[in-house]
Amino acid sequence: MKALIEGFLKFQKEAFPQRTDLFKHLATTQHPGTLFITCSDSRVVPELLTQQEPGELFVIRNAGNIVPSYSPHSGGVSATVEYAVAVLGVTDIVICGHSDCGAMTAVAKCKCMDHLPAVAGWLQHAESAKVINESRPHASEAAKVSSMVRENVIAQLANIQTHPSVRLAQEKGLVNLHGWVYDIGTGSIDALDADNKTFKSLVKHPNTVAVHARPAKAVA
Amino acid sequence: MKALIEGFLKFQKEAFPQRTDLFKHLATTQHPGTLFITCSDSRVVPELLTQQEPGELFVIRNAGNIVPSYSPHSGGVSATVEYAVAVLGVTDIVICGHSDCGAMTAVAKCKCMDHLPAVAGWLQHAESAKVINESRPHASEAAKVSSMVRENVIAQLANIQTHPSVRLAQEKGLVNLHGWVYDIGTGSIDALDADNKTFKSLVKHPNTVAVHARPAKAVA
Amino acid sequence: MKALIEGFLKFQKEAFPQRTDLFKHLATTQHPGTLFITCSDSRVVPELLTQQEPGELFVIRNAGNIVPSYSPHSGGVSATVEYAVAVLGVTDIVICGHSDCGAMTAVAKCKCMDHLPAVAGWLQHAESAKVINESRPHASEAAKVSSMVRENVIAQLANIQTHPSVRLAQEKGLVNLHGWVYDIGTGSIDALDADNKTFKSLVKHPNTVAVHARPAKAVA
Amino acid sequence: MKALIEGFLKFQKEAFPQRTDLFKHLATTQHPGTLFITCSDSRVVPELLTQQEPGELFVIRNAGNIVPSYSPHSGGVSATVEYAVAVLGVTDIVICGHSDCGAMTAVAKCKCMDHLPAVAGWLQHAESAKVINESRPHASEAAKVSSMVRENVIAQLANIQTHPSVRLAQEKGLVNLHGWVYDIGTGSIDALDADNKTFKSLVKHPNTVAVHARPAKAVA
Repeated sequence: MKALIEGFLKFQKEAFPQRTDLFKHLATTQHPGTLFITCSDSRVVPELLTQQEPGELFVIRNAGNIVPSYSPHSGGVSATVEYAVAVLGVTDIVICGHSDCGAMTAVAKCKCMDHLPAVAGWLQHAESAKVINESRPHASEAAKVSSMVRENVIAQLANIQTHPSVRLAQEKGLVNLHGWVYDIGTGSIDALDADNKTFKSLVKHPNTVAVHARPAKAVA
Repeated sequence: MKALIEGFLKFQKEAFPQRTDLFKHLATTQHPGTLFITCSDSRVVPELLTQQEPGELFVIRNAGNIVPSYSPHSGGVSATVEYAVAVLGVTDIVICGHSDCGAMTAVAKCKCMDHLPAVAGWLQHAESAKVINESRPHASEAAKVSSMVRENVIAQLANIQTHPSVRLAQEKGLVNLHGWVYDIGTGSIDALDADNKTFKSLVKHPNTVAVHARPAKAVA
Repeated sequence: MKALIEGFLKFQKEAFPQRTDLFKHLATTQHPGTLFITCSDSRVVPELLTQQEPGELFVIRNAGNIVPSYSPHSGGVSATVEYAVAVLGVTDIVICGHSDCGAMTAVAKCKCMDHLPAVAGWLQHAESAKVINESRPHASEAAKVSSMVRENVIAQLANIQTHPSVRLAQEKGLVNLHGWVYDIGTGSIDALDADNKTFKSLVKHPNTVAVHARPAKAVA
Repeated sequence: MKALIEGFLKFQKEAFPQRTDLFKHLATTQHPGTLFITCSDSRVVPELLTQQEPGELFVIRNAGNIVPSYSPHSGGVSATVEYAVAVLGVTDIVICGHSDCGAMTAVAKCKCMDHLPAVAGWLQHAESAKVINESRPHASEAAKVSSMVRENVIAQLANIQTHPSVRLAQEKGLVNLHGWVYDIGTGSIDALDADNKTFKSLVKHPNTVAVHARPAKAVA
């Protein structure tokens, strides 16, 4: 904790003065363009990874970068998605998984979670990804975990499209969805190409979009 | 979105190479000391604010930096807290609110949220803070919002202490809880002094701890 | 009720003897090819509408032909979908709405449902369809209801694709999804063309499929 | 699926023209007298079995013809029962089980359902029937399943009487409840005689009513 407080003192002395105008401007307003949904994992820092300044990314972080599908009894992720899309009007949503994810490793290896009831319940929102991953052969345990991370991103992209606010924004052509997987050791990102359900290097294919916004069209 | 991808390319060229050894080390392990719970707000960047490198902060972010109290049908925050405390063994938990919070402004001003059903449901977890805030006189609307932000941090600190994993860690003397409020315009932080329920400048009182871990003691 | 019992006596005398061999065969086995999900409405009789004999259609019927998206605390629709797909191995799923639907009329006209709390709760699973329908101009109240029926079919097709059993079967290329709207007065059916989100006459376009099964492909 | 579309074309050419007046009349109204609750099983076709035309039966179908008892967070069955009783004013409710029921066989034989979590959860609504069935000796496995089907009908009749809409209609003397078991191989139906909890052939005892509506009477 000492490191955090020393870090904050350093922020006040160095990082804040470099951004005085930015923070003065941001004091009473925010207009982030992107909702960035990623894992709570300490190694995944969205603003570092995308080199974004304060004010750019509206961020949801939880174990496993999970978005429960919509239900009348929704929780914090649903509320935060609704706020980002319906109030702030973000134009892009990134769901970003990552290598060596503890949550996805637990799912892929069917680890006993009797002593972690809240975690076990939460990870059932990755069940559709799990059954697909289980149905395939994998070259190794590591490959199975890696594939699980990817399938989970795909599943959460399906889940988020059951949310009224997201569907309405898609229908109006206002929001694009992106599926990313970040590799901690190499600093690379693979992005989902929705057309053929494969992940491609973001460096080589910078324009990949998981799900394009659809221009509004009346249902005749 | 273009800015994000360009930012990522910059990360690969500049930020990653500066940390090659760190990321190689982190590729297969994380040992964060702190669980940092804050708002999804784009202006609040935990790692910038505390000048922490990847690997240090396990982060939960949602609208209003809310921690629902424990229940059998818990959601993502409960799962992530459980994982941080029971699996990763964090020694400190920071709940960090901030100035100009959209969620707390909506609560303090009793804004109609009929068009935001998920947000409305979620903010009921701040109800105990709201009724306390309503019971007091406030010099202005701004003061009322500012007070709401503080009361919410206090309420969420109470909520998190209903979680079995947190209570067990407290009982064992393994975890300290901290309540912070970050001011965006000035870059300052006030920390809760649990003894007299007041917030004090973190610069002047760097050792303030909201709730000390209690050494385990048998209940006679 | 007298009519039902007389009807049953007639069934025993006339309809059953015409199908003695079929029913003898079916006494201990069923292999339906299709899961047919439609409204409880008395005017929509799936087997009449598709001229199918007993043994062909596995049928779910509830108010509004709704399929809640998947959640750990799932109910009867989720269970029945799981049974149809994972145990019986149906190859097609039809979600069939219909004209003059009481449930969709209530949603489209924002009727007060304070006296019908269970109905009100249930119809929140059509919320994403409602917000889209509300966002469009409609030539008349009747057109708005008609459009609501169509949007609801599209929304329920999105919901069903969050179910693990369905996603797995899609991934293996084993199941196709179909969106239908039946017009009671004219006896016609419009089917959803998923590519451009329009409904087309099933007579003129008999091969329309809402969502094609995807051949399994490993996520690299 | 080809058979369904061909069946529909046949419906348009043959079955619809025979009922043009009926369907024209039904286009904007329904007045079903009976709520018929039965299994999703493809071999059980309510309208065939009771020789009823469109407009007569309001139908709920799910795996195991289950009606969860009432709770604040009710689902589709509760909503559909509420609509049938409180809005449409049906005068009779039939809960119809059937021979060779996959769901009841799974319950009676305690089959492992680890791979079918949604089904397993749903069939807990038949738990009270299961424990009663387990408490009795059975001549064979087949007899045990057959008894389970009957006990389930009795249990679901108890469940439906916890619904406010049903209890109110009973109290006003407006609705009768019926428990049926249909035998697929022989086309016969046994009906529950509520007085002595036995099932009797509907042909021989056509006036059997499971639970009579009670004329309203003040509770002194």
